Amino acid sequence: MSIIVGYIPTREGRAALRAARAEALLRQDKLVVVNSHRGGRDFDADEAQRFEDELGRVQRDLDEAGIEHEVRALVRGNEPAEDLVEVAEESNGQLIVIGLRRRTPIGKLILGSNAQRILLEATCPVLAVKAGDDD
Amino acid sequence: MSIIVGYIPTREGRAALRAARAEALLRQDKLVVVNSHRGGRDFDADEAQRFEDELGRVQRDLDEAGIEHEVRALVRGNEPAEDLVEVAEESNGQLIVIGLRRRTPIGKLILGSNAQRILLEATCPVLAVKAGDDD
Repeated sequence: MSIIVGYIPTREGRAALRAARAEALLRQDKLVVVNSHRGGRDFDADEAQRFEDELGRVQRDLDEAGIEHEVRALVRGNEPAEDLVEVAEESNGQLIVIGLRRRTPIGKLILGSNAQRILLEATCPVLAVKAGDDD
Repeated sequence: MSIIVGYIPTREGRAALRAARAEALLRQDKLVVVNSHRGGRDFDADEAQRFEDELGRVQRDLDEAGIEHEVRALVRGNEPAEDLVEVAEESNGQLIVIGLRRRTPIGKLILGSNAQRILLEATCPVLAVKAGDDD
């Protein structure tokens, strides 16, 4: 059994990772950290390097906390939601953790399209968390 | 700390209750079962009686499982989402559990308006589960 978390270096991504880490400890499950981006035009080498460094730090933190884990960086042209749901199915996922953005810069409440797809398409439960002031 | 679950006698409501019960056991938290309906025209005395019986069974099951709990039947003219988010805030909720309907009768994927509101407005994490074949 494993906990699957979609991780991107944003406040919501960090909030999701923090919650997923806590769930992995509580349930004594393996944590699968999925970073997916679509490649192609979205892909910038400097940004990719910075992100790789951040993922490295995430891995060291999980090592130190003694949480069994795996980091999967996927660039296969999929929407993040698609990758996350697929990895959950392949990995016998018991829980997907996602970060929600609470408000747009103009203050409107929205549920992003990736979040909606994951909530609807996941076959396992989905834990949705919001970023706090510390994320 | 407590786990808050919105309960209605549907497949999704039962799936949410089952998941919330498991979370209460895992986290050793109190379970607050919220049933809210708007009263007025939606209110039918026979239906209310049947539902009350079902809530009674839920309470006996929680008693037997040794899970500290509270059942709140609210008829105060609110949308269920509003009641659930408010109860979570009043009860120091650490998690809200909701059931999602995966498909409409014509097979379309949808996320109901109550689910969307809870996901967006809750200040605590929200666990979204789907009904299984046994619910």
